[in-house]
Amino acid sequence: MSQPLTLYIGNKNYSSWSMRIGVLLKEKDIEFREIKVRFDSFSPQSEFKKTILAINPTGTVPVLVDNNLVIWDSLAIAEYLAEKFLERQLWPDGVAQRARARSLCAAMHGGFTALRNACPMNIEAKLPEVGALAWRDNAALRADVARLETLLGESLQRNSGPFLFGEQFSIADAFYAPVVMRLQTYALPVSATLLAYMKHITNLPSVQGWIVDALQEHDFRAFEEPYRLEHTVNP
Amino acid sequence: MSQPLTLYIGNKNYSSWSMRIGVLLKEKDIEFREIKVRFDSFSPQSEFKKTILAINPTGTVPVLVDNNLVIWDSLAIAEYLAEKFLERQLWPDGVAQRARARSLCAAMHGGFTALRNACPMNIEAKLPEVGALAWRDNAALRADVARLETLLGESLQRNSGPFLFGEQFSIADAFYAPVVMRLQTYALPVSATLLAYMKHITNLPSVQGWIVDALQEHDFRAFEEPYRLEHTVNP
Repeated sequence: MSQPLTLYIGNKNYSSWSMRIGVLLKEKDIEFREIKVRFDSFSPQSEFKKTILAINPTGTVPVLVDNNLVIWDSLAIAEYLAEKFLERQLWPDGVAQRARARSLCAAMHGGFTALRNACPMNIEAKLPEVGALAWRDNAALRADVARLETLLGESLQRNSGPFLFGEQFSIADAFYAPVVMRLQTYALPVSATLLAYMKHITNLPSVQGWIVDALQEHDFRAFEEPYRLEHTVNP
Repeated sequence: MSQPLTLYIGNKNYSSWSMRIGVLLKEKDIEFREIKVRFDSFSPQSEFKKTILAINPTGTVPVLVDNNLVIWDSLAIAEYLAEKFLERQLWPDGVAQRARARSLCAAMHGGFTALRNACPMNIEAKLPEVGALAWRDNAALRADVARLETLLGESLQRNSGPFLFGEQFSIADAFYAPVVMRLQTYALPVSATLLAYMKHITNLPSVQGWIVDALQEHDFRAFEEPYRLEHTVNP
């Protein structure tokens, strides 16, 4: 008998890489069992690293386990799911569209470093002042958001939205869902096009479900929050 | 009439990401036109960045252009080539094997940071002293090489070599070819298994061709060589 898929994730409030796969699985209605490995720290001696290293030699989440097959890194997991559940159309139709979608994912996977460093995902928080300071002082952050506008804007326009590749949610949208969370938390200034896309993504049941779970964690991890000393409850 | 593929690359001596795709295309006998964009610097004002940003909004090499389709990031390019040239078997057979191969590529694509930082690709150079100092002082580098031994060793053993996924060269081998160059340049201590794999990869015609081109560049780029003031010709 085949076991269901098992997905290992980190804290839902903080783990942007976990969110990509969690949202993708839910949005595509793929059954899975979720195991959360709480972030204590990322030092080699942390419980988090010890737990994950026992499963995955790179020591990162997410990890997908399918019987005796262990797959890590969000992109490799997404490609595996796209092959295994071909009929759910995780990638857009057509080799050229898939190439564009993969290029967008790659831009996120390996880039947008300034945005990722200055605005770590923190779903629970509202940090407009932190965002405003970063926006004022961090030219690389402004350049990242400008590139984001170009890349997503061009894709939304070519494919007529509401998703990056048209009518259907794809892996590309899953990859940008945590970016949407960042833009909201830090209240970065964005175009009307991007704002409409952000609303569309935020309202998806899969994303709403992830947000609800993140808000229930109440698990303030100081090392994930370089900008404040303590947890403050949002209004 | 369809144009041939065009691949934009950086200096062959230094650009590990370019090498992956250059070697992959040659090894799989896929026709392409190569355009080298010389590294002058990576500042936004550099000729390199200006040239590449005109083609690719992320400003990185390699970039593959197929008629009006522009694909960036080595992994997205590799996936595109695997789809377009299905009969050349760029990925191994079977969904589980492909998942393992993609996980290995992802480990390289997003990880091995200490190895990549301490030992930048520099095909022309012989830097055993730089390697020995890094090995002595850099625990993260030693951990990266230990992980490399585990990951590659396990794959070579499962699939009985000589490539990572058996008898056929795959994208996974292309992704680790620059690592082989690094291990050689810095003379890092490795197991007999890894050494045999390194020899096998280095002797491939595609890799030999890349090395010959790299050696002919004679283009010492100081910003790529944090460990020495000037170029010294190897014996």
